[in-house]
Amino acid sequence: MSEKTLKYYGWGYADAGLDADQTKALIATFRDGFGIEPSRDGAFPAMDEIELPAPKIVAPANLGGICSTDKHDRVVHAFGQSQPDSIRIYDRDFAHAPDVIAYPENEQHIAEIYEWADKAGAAVIPWGAGSSVVGGVTSDVGARYNGTISVDMGRMDKVVEVDDVSRAARIQGGARGPALEAQLKPHGLTLRHFPQSFEHSTFGGWIATRSGGHFATLYTHIDDLVESTTTVTPAGNIVSRRLPGSGAGPSPDRFIAMGSEGALGIVTEGWARLQGRPTFKATAGFRFADFFDAARAVRAVSQAGLFPANVRIVDGVELQVNGAGDGSFTLMVVSFESADHPVDPWMARAEECCLDNGGVVDVDWRDNPDAHLQGAVGAWRTAFIRMPYNREQLTPRGIISDTFETSITWDRFEEFYQVIKSATQAAMKDVTGHAGAVSCRFSHAYPDGPAPYFAFHCPGDPNGGMLEQWQAIKNAASDALIANGGTITHHHAVGRDHQKWYEQQRPALFGDVLTDAKKRLDPKGMLNPGVIVS
Amino acid sequence: MSEKTLKYYGWGYADAGLDADQTKALIATFRDGFGIEPSRDGAFPAMDEIELPAPKIVAPANLGGICSTDKHDRVVHAFGQSQPDSIRIYDRDFAHAPDVIAYPENEQHIAEIYEWADKAGAAVIPWGAGSSVVGGVTSDVGARYNGTISVDMGRMDKVVEVDDVSRAARIQGGARGPALEAQLKPHGLTLRHFPQSFEHSTFGGWIATRSGGHFATLYTHIDDLVESTTTVTPAGNIVSRRLPGSGAGPSPDRFIAMGSEGALGIVTEGWARLQGRPTFKATAGFRFADFFDAARAVRAVSQAGLFPANVRIVDGVELQVNGAGDGSFTLMVVSFESADHPVDPWMARAEECCLDNGGVVDVDWRDNPDAHLQGAVGAWRTAFIRMPYNREQLTPRGIISDTFETSITWDRFEEFYQVIKSATQAAMKDVTGHAGAVSCRFSHAYPDGPAPYFAFHCPGDPNGGMLEQWQAIKNAASDALIANGGTITHHHAVGRDHQKWYEQQRPALFGDVLTDAKKRLDPKGMLNPGVIVS
Repeated sequence: MSEKTLKYYGWGYADAGLDADQTKALIATFRDGFGIEPSRDGAFPAMDEIELPAPKIVAPANLGGICSTDKHDRVVHAFGQSQPDSIRIYDRDFAHAPDVIAYPENEQHIAEIYEWADKAGAAVIPWGAGSSVVGGVTSDVGARYNGTISVDMGRMDKVVEVDDVSRAARIQGGARGPALEAQLKPHGLTLRHFPQSFEHSTFGGWIATRSGGHFATLYTHIDDLVESTTTVTPAGNIVSRRLPGSGAGPSPDRFIAMGSEGALGIVTEGWARLQGRPTFKATAGFRFADFFDAARAVRAVSQAGLFPANVRIVDGVELQVNGAGDGSFTLMVVSFESADHPVDPWMARAEECCLDNGGVVDVDWRDNPDAHLQGAVGAWRTAFIRMPYNREQLTPRGIISDTFETSITWDRFEEFYQVIKSATQAAMKDVTGHAGAVSCRFSHAYPDGPAPYFAFHCPGDPNGGMLEQWQAIKNAASDALIANGGTITHHHAVGRDHQKWYEQQRPALFGDVLTDAKKRLDPKGMLNPGVIVS
Repeated sequence: MSEKTLKYYGWGYADAGLDADQTKALIATFRDGFGIEPSRDGAFPAMDEIELPAPKIVAPANLGGICSTDKHDRVVHAFGQSQPDSIRIYDRDFAHAPDVIAYPENEQHIAEIYEWADKAGAAVIPWGAGSSVVGGVTSDVGARYNGTISVDMGRMDKVVEVDDVSRAARIQGGARGPALEAQLKPHGLTLRHFPQSFEHSTFGGWIATRSGGHFATLYTHIDDLVESTTTVTPAGNIVSRRLPGSGAGPSPDRFIAMGSEGALGIVTEGWARLQGRPTFKATAGFRFADFFDAARAVRAVSQAGLFPANVRIVDGVELQVNGAGDGSFTLMVVSFESADHPVDPWMARAEECCLDNGGVVDVDWRDNPDAHLQGAVGAWRTAFIRMPYNREQLTPRGIISDTFETSITWDRFEEFYQVIKSATQAAMKDVTGHAGAVSCRFSHAYPDGPAPYFAFHCPGDPNGGMLEQWQAIKNAASDALIANGGTITHHHAVGRDHQKWYEQQRPALFGDVLTDAKKRLDPKGMLNPGVIVS
């Protein structure tokens, strides 16, 4: 379990965030580039300004040693890291904070927590590292429950077993990215699953939310990196076999563990497929005058069967917001990595695909081990790592700033992009009176289509109206995604924020099947209410 | 729909099979190599020797035009292509033949068939092209039903729509391999899913059974080639969205369509991911004195991240049975294919992995476009294509000959292999008094483990005891697979033959979830009784 203190009003540890100069630059970029001015100069509440209701439930004796009702614990576990979470923290909206935080150390503890919740009529919120950006851990469960228990998996953070021959490891659900990689490093192995939340998300959380890693092609989702899973449900444990591949009936992992987001059980451990630590790397950057030309280059690389570690485009607006461009060009980053062989032939062919589609070299990959730190490539990379810390500066200044992501097939992409962008811009204008800014990058790319990742920014109401404004813009963008054939999420997950659109997206009868599974595995409906099964 | 007549006692069309010389060579190989002699010189029954009960149900007027009670139709649809199917055909065991064969032309027809089956109290057996080797289409449903309708999807065989930009196509469930590839060819595209049954299996059947294609790494199962599916269930249609990737809840495709084997519905169409037709190809062959050295070479190639089209080892026994070796060596075949770029750097590195592990070049890939036709590589390839036709020669001669396949992680592989092989040999000896022959190849290879494919052959009882003998050997092999951590099937599917072991393999609570889904989607239990949900 981490010894460091988590921030309660934003991303990461209490001692991490933008410094004064970085904050100044961020605000200046919004002002100078897009006319987005702070609408207020506020601050998140200090801890002693936050009022919590007294806990409504008390842990039984057998669980007393692993439970906490400490104020900081309850405050931290009240929200995830979404835009509405941030606004509600600013607004001191903590009435729904969980009553008790439980820190199970084994599967038996989890079973005992379920027994307690059953008797107490309480809700149970599985909590990995709390970085959900979709309300997946926000403990707002309504009046139906007599209390809420947040189950923090942080003490189940071990790599239990490593199989060097098959390159696989048995990893506990509460292991955060850095902790699990540190335990794999002595074996010369790596899971190489690097979501932007890597530092503040867990192996079990990745599986439960079908997390997407940094790598943009081939094994994008954690789904493909998992051999087997153990899920502890109120009805008992579900343990799948460790298999490299199987065709025996529908995959239990892909129904029970992957994508159930804590509504059917808690993923306590799994066997993960590992790789050798890459020793051969190459990165190149290309500039495109036209976003769609860049998209066509991504398509060409994706359909060439080269499987780059990265093939990403970032449009002019996103580069500008992040101080990595002047808005006049789209950046494309291509990189290859291997633990086994030089990647030059791969990169050379990918470069041809980029040049064929109108790309101009921004950073040359040849004999250039520092390519990823250079030019627009390096500038955007630096900003990317810092991005999650922006929000805690923007919310107090009354600036709405959020992202959403989806996927779509190539044939529909260009029209889809225009429609989504227009719908979001129109909603911002309608709701706030300001055109705002909408940007797009590709987070992942497949032979049959990209995963476009949008961001939107606009000045919000300084006097308590920001949450409603955000919801109206979010509604417009989400309606447009669903009406135009996209998915409500490619890798951010469903959570409470996307549930409405997820129910539109999924086949109705499949929703019934999920409801039946919920009744079977969680008959009292205690687990993560409002998520996946409403 | 195919115009050619299907054989009713074995694989393929009526005019296809081994010629006299090929048959003679096959029998000689068994005798000379393994002392396996024919125990009888029998023949399958002629059509007029087969007695069928009168149909117990009659199609309603609205379906009369698409239904048949023709004797040949009923005989062909009574069995698939398993060893027990073959023995039962020889034994004239046709009492369970389906009463009516329905040939739906659209989804509405299927809904009407379900209505009819509901009223009639009949079972419905979805039927693609009838090549199940696990009893998946064998219409033996027990006394609970008033009749059986076999639903032959052969008239829904169109590629409905091709998206050249995303490289995807909407394909009807009843399209057989050759038909769908012929329709894709004018677009310069290919699905490139080539199970051994390619000619006699369908797109919908591949999805329903989680079929494995010829290509041995990366996209091995049809699962990864499918964007979306439409499944018609008795409760209504389940249509998923066409998405390159998604993280919105558990995948509906991977629970409803993939692996449900016709127990939840009939897969009527789906969007499939396609590829450019390969223009760059290279194949190499290597000989290994030791089977486990060859396995280590496969592991090295698989873990190198090269993703060959093929990386397969065939042991001495299998080579000998198929006239491609003298039993003294294991053959390894490695091949690469690309529609985009020369594959020499990939092959050069794979060759290093083979030579490093003790391989000796059998067929050199350099400047050798005919490599796949040469040496042991070519000999085995020729035999491989012919293999499905062997059984119709062996069963009448009283020789038991069957295959089973699984997967296992690399750390357990060597011991697993020994245990499975020993259990199968011991069972043959015990049951038939003859040691028989057991062979192994890898059908697929993953970074974390292989998919071993076993075959066993022994002389059977000439006087009606073959079915029981086969079952006893199958039981021993299957028990060993499950007890030692394997899967009961990597790509052959569950069917009726594997249901018992599938129920041991799957987590018990997941079995309950499947049972609930069955009740929801097929409340009368009409669909493929005895398969997946018993």
